[in-house]
Amino acid sequence: MRITSIGVGNMGGAVARRLTQGGFNVTVFDLDDSAMHRCVAAGTARSESMEEGVSDADVVITSLPTPALVARTVAQAAELLPEGSIVMDISTIDPQAARAAGASCAEHGVRFVSCALGKTPGHAENGQIPLFVGGEATAINELAAVFGQMGEKTYYFDDVEGATTFKLVSNMIGMTNVATLSEGLALARRAGIDDGLFSEALQDTGAVSFQSDVRLPWLIEGDWSTRFSVDLAAKDVSLALEAAQARGLDAPISRAALEQLKAASSQGYGGNDVVAVARVYLEGETGE
Amino acid sequence: MRITSIGVGNMGGAVARRLTQGGFNVTVFDLDDSAMHRCVAAGTARSESMEEGVSDADVVITSLPTPALVARTVAQAAELLPEGSIVMDISTIDPQAARAAGASCAEHGVRFVSCALGKTPGHAENGQIPLFVGGEATAINELAAVFGQMGEKTYYFDDVEGATTFKLVSNMIGMTNVATLSEGLALARRAGIDDGLFSEALQDTGAVSFQSDVRLPWLIEGDWSTRFSVDLAAKDVSLALEAAQARGLDAPISRAALEQLKAASSQGYGGNDVVAVARVYLEGETGE
Repeated sequence: MRITSIGVGNMGGAVARRLTQGGFNVTVFDLDDSAMHRCVAAGTARSESMEEGVSDADVVITSLPTPALVARTVAQAAELLPEGSIVMDISTIDPQAARAAGASCAEHGVRFVSCALGKTPGHAENGQIPLFVGGEATAINELAAVFGQMGEKTYYFDDVEGATTFKLVSNMIGMTNVATLSEGLALARRAGIDDGLFSEALQDTGAVSFQSDVRLPWLIEGDWSTRFSVDLAAKDVSLALEAAQARGLDAPISRAALEQLKAASSQGYGGNDVVAVARVYLEGETGE
Repeated sequence: MRITSIGVGNMGGAVARRLTQGGFNVTVFDLDDSAMHRCVAAGTARSESMEEGVSDADVVITSLPTPALVARTVAQAAELLPEGSIVMDISTIDPQAARAAGASCAEHGVRFVSCALGKTPGHAENGQIPLFVGGEATAINELAAVFGQMGEKTYYFDDVEGATTFKLVSNMIGMTNVATLSEGLALARRAGIDDGLFSEALQDTGAVSFQSDVRLPWLIEGDWSTRFSVDLAAKDVSLALEAAQARGLDAPISRAALEQLKAASSQGYGGNDVVAVARVYLEGETGE
């Protein structure tokens, strides 16, 4: 099985290296030469153009920053690929873009699979991520060994709609929880509550979450270094809200969280970790 | 140490019984006779009036539904109590009401302590709750054995402001997390994602929280039976937002959550468990 990875940034690169490490035959292509280099150094082949990379692949993996870019790239790849081959997108995209990508593939007898990834590039590098999969059933069967190498656990959804929406929903909840936690910390500080006491006592309440476990220490230390940026969080929550709107669902709490993420971005913190949404609240504190 | 408990509803009653069980001399007073009866059956004395109950107490414990009622009751008790006695409020109140109660006490040489309680009446019955304490330092020292019998762990804040605000902040975060989770579940359902798969896959994401652990099963089953009601959640988030506003802090995400709690209440779900905030989103689903 010859795999070509298109887009080998943080997540895409980690997945390409992980597959190579597992003995898969992987070729990479990216507009960023240094991103390709990090994969070649780990044993992948490289391609000088998307066309060249795609032409003799059995499976094309796309990992790209925006849904529009995914839809366009998948459409191009589908034209070049032989019938029966597989395109698997591992980006975080909206269901509409996933459906469009699937339709482009179907036109050319290519099978499309959405495989949204959980956790971080560090986890992906070691195959410790969850996979949220949906799409063409025979392709999903044939990819079993690929999923096994890529991740720790695969969750099978009925369709690309389910897989992509699930990923957006989980990020919408998680990122809104981060922003809500920031509001709480800001209020506690203004009431003169010591950060350490806040953090300790919170453990004994219904306010704890994955996000408070992982991110409250960073929030308190003002450690804004990026693990998952404000701008990526805003992108995902925004896509989730578009998917909600398309289905007639209003989600005003997540919408309020998106506004705060955008405010953080417009104040220059878009490249910081999503905990920097707290700066919108905290920096008013002392009139700084 | 003679203790008089004023207000022995769910939480107040559980605390009174727990103290009696630990050998404390407890007298109860409540306008609701059946609430008093549940304490007398567990070994407390009862009083026919607040005045009688307070007149010979060393420590008065108040557990009442609203901050205004706490402030008024504490002011009345302070007039009747001998100098040097202690009033300890265990209600969930705002810092302003706590300061007012403290001031009423100080006027009469009575010492005031705020002791906000975590978890549920069931936990309080067995002394398994966290205590968030602030107030007059000598009184806090003298109450050590009382705290030890009431709860599992005591967190000491600098003042009543800290203790009461902390409790409000933790409920603001927790209740907003519940409402956010409801938005996510509603979107997942509209995308055709199976509830069981949603619940299982969510465990592998940054969306998990104490609230998803405890309340997602109830949300999915549509089990609206009350553990902590929509109306109590709305009250606490509202008090938290007032405390925020008093300190010049805008908290738009929690404010959006409050609006959803109020919407659930106005649709007739105020007495349901706070998970019923989801009914605002879910019942639009099928045009019910």
